Amino acid sequence: MVHAGKLSPETLKKIIFSNLGVTDPRVIIGPQVGEDAAVIDFGDRFLITHADPITGAIENIGWLSVNIIANDIATRGARPRWLLVVMLLPQSIKLSQIKQIMEQINEAATSLDMAIVGGHTEITLDIDRPILIMTAFGETNGKMVINTNGAKVGDAIIVTKGIAIEGTAILSTEMADSLKGKVDKETIRKAQRFVRMISVVKDAMTATEVGGVHAMHDATEGGIATGLQEVAAASKVGIRVNEKNIPIFEETKKICNALEIDPLKTISSGMLIIAADAKKANEIVEALKKAGVQGKIVGEVVKKDEGAYILRKDGSKLDLSKPLEEELWKCLKFK
Amino acid sequence: MVHAGKLSPETLKKIIFSNLGVTDPRVIIGPQVGEDAAVIDFGDRFLITHADPITGAIENIGWLSVNIIANDIATRGARPRWLLVVMLLPQSIKLSQIKQIMEQINEAATSLDMAIVGGHTEITLDIDRPILIMTAFGETNGKMVINTNGAKVGDAIIVTKGIAIEGTAILSTEMADSLKGKVDKETIRKAQRFVRMISVVKDAMTATEVGGVHAMHDATEGGIATGLQEVAAASKVGIRVNEKNIPIFEETKKICNALEIDPLKTISSGMLIIAADAKKANEIVEALKKAGVQGKIVGEVVKKDEGAYILRKDGSKLDLSKPLEEELWKCLKFK
Repeated sequence: MVHAGKLSPETLKKIIFSNLGVTDPRVIIGPQVGEDAAVIDFGDRFLITHADPITGAIENIGWLSVNIIANDIATRGARPRWLLVVMLLPQSIKLSQIKQIMEQINEAATSLDMAIVGGHTEITLDIDRPILIMTAFGETNGKMVINTNGAKVGDAIIVTKGIAIEGTAILSTEMADSLKGKVDKETIRKAQRFVRMISVVKDAMTATEVGGVHAMHDATEGGIATGLQEVAAASKVGIRVNEKNIPIFEETKKICNALEIDPLKTISSGMLIIAADAKKANEIVEALKKAGVQGKIVGEVVKKDEGAYILRKDGSKLDLSKPLEEELWKCLKFK
Repeated sequence: MVHAGKLSPETLKKIIFSNLGVTDPRVIIGPQVGEDAAVIDFGDRFLITHADPITGAIENIGWLSVNIIANDIATRGARPRWLLVVMLLPQSIKLSQIKQIMEQINEAATSLDMAIVGGHTEITLDIDRPILIMTAFGETNGKMVINTNGAKVGDAIIVTKGIAIEGTAILSTEMADSLKGKVDKETIRKAQRFVRMISVVKDAMTATEVGGVHAMHDATEGGIATGLQEVAAASKVGIRVNEKNIPIFEETKKICNALEIDPLKTISSGMLIIAADAKKANEIVEALKKAGVQGKIVGEVVKKDEGAYILRKDGSKLDLSKPLEEELWKCLKFK
């Protein structure tokens, strides 16, 4: 769930992005800093694909790995359909644990209507926890794809479910001891189940079907603040969002309060950020509701020179033009 | 280059193959024991894709990772075109080494006319050597795909280049000390460069274009013997191959002799095994020659009950119906 360390944008540019093989005009979207999926022209449609590694506790790794990679395909407006699963397992692992991981993968894939088409499983020397590398594939309906960079001035900004969903799940699990006495057991129990909400596939598919969507992005590390920042930067626009409109679950509020963490900057897989034609915004929120997903209009896209910020409840502005730090690291170390 | 340990076929069946998400009729070839690429129906063509991890010395890892995954696509009769590159790097790695790996990847991808479309690079805690996970994609020309299981009774068996190419490269590098005094320096120097021959993409594309190819397989772990065994088992046929027809480089002969290793059972990436209509066999060999690849007819496909074996020069038979051991492990440990 947590990357021990990405390379700096400068290093990526100098070492990685200058060594990408041949240039192929069929590659509509290729490698970019960030986590976006590639888009390849396949005649009457686009192939959307992305690969990502994940390490972490066996408890959730299978479930998370499928849902997180599926999110990357769905935010392109394409239904994720197929998976390649590479599992590197430590020698210490038990067969029952491999089974547990595979059952989670199966459950997640089935819930998303995805098929595993291949992969590779091995016991790898010198690793002490499982590493899963997932490749997901989807295809667009015709030659239409949604990017992070498509937001237009005047667009409404819609978000789904609530902020810091993934953070709530992680904190309630990893910080359970520190939370004792500060937050009631029932809240913690419920919060631990937030991991079941980290898919944005239904959210993205529903919004795409309505139409009028100009940009989509899932709010992962750095939370909604970083997510909005990335949309603004990629689309070269400003953003004005009002904190009082932003949905937050009661469990998230209690846990973030207790740990003095800002949920606006806490990892938020499960929340989809949508920039859509303002005239379509209500229709999208309605369609989401029908699909059982809470959607809310939280702000609007403005001109770049009007700035990008979240207006806080106390009247201050959270500036989205400056680097933001993920809040989780205030209490957790890299795992 | 070397898998520390695959799971047993029984474990794969019980734990992995029973947890594959939904069944999708568009998946033409899905997960199978072995290393074959997946085939997905994309309307007017098939998408061919495969993912595989590789660990090993920085010296060659970038070059090998691209070529080996590209081979998996090409043996389906599809030109490999796109790559997703996931790099998990140890904290001890230097920027110059990351650059070295990327330059190898770039060189290999460029030589194969492939584009890198995305991926992920990170410094991973707790690993002590780089792990690369490559996903490759290709597409068929129309809805035609070549499988390991398509060999027909009466087919000619053609192989390319020479046996134990990869093994020769590995042994000349890893066993350089043991070979001193037994094999001349010039031979060792040449053998170390055999790593440049491990691609079978040109071999596979050339044969496919001629037509009449019923099955292709690259001879990896276990060498030509295991490669033929896999074709025979998958196609439910017998195979009769004559050792005296099998091409072997002088360097391979000298090194295998010195180390008392059987090159017929030594890892052979770089050699393509083709089962083709006997009437087309000479035309395929000619086309390969024109493309600068040595191809040779080494035997024929017979009925299953006639058995599968390689007739050795000493008149004995190397039975291909029994499990075979990779010869490399006689001198090398898992790395």
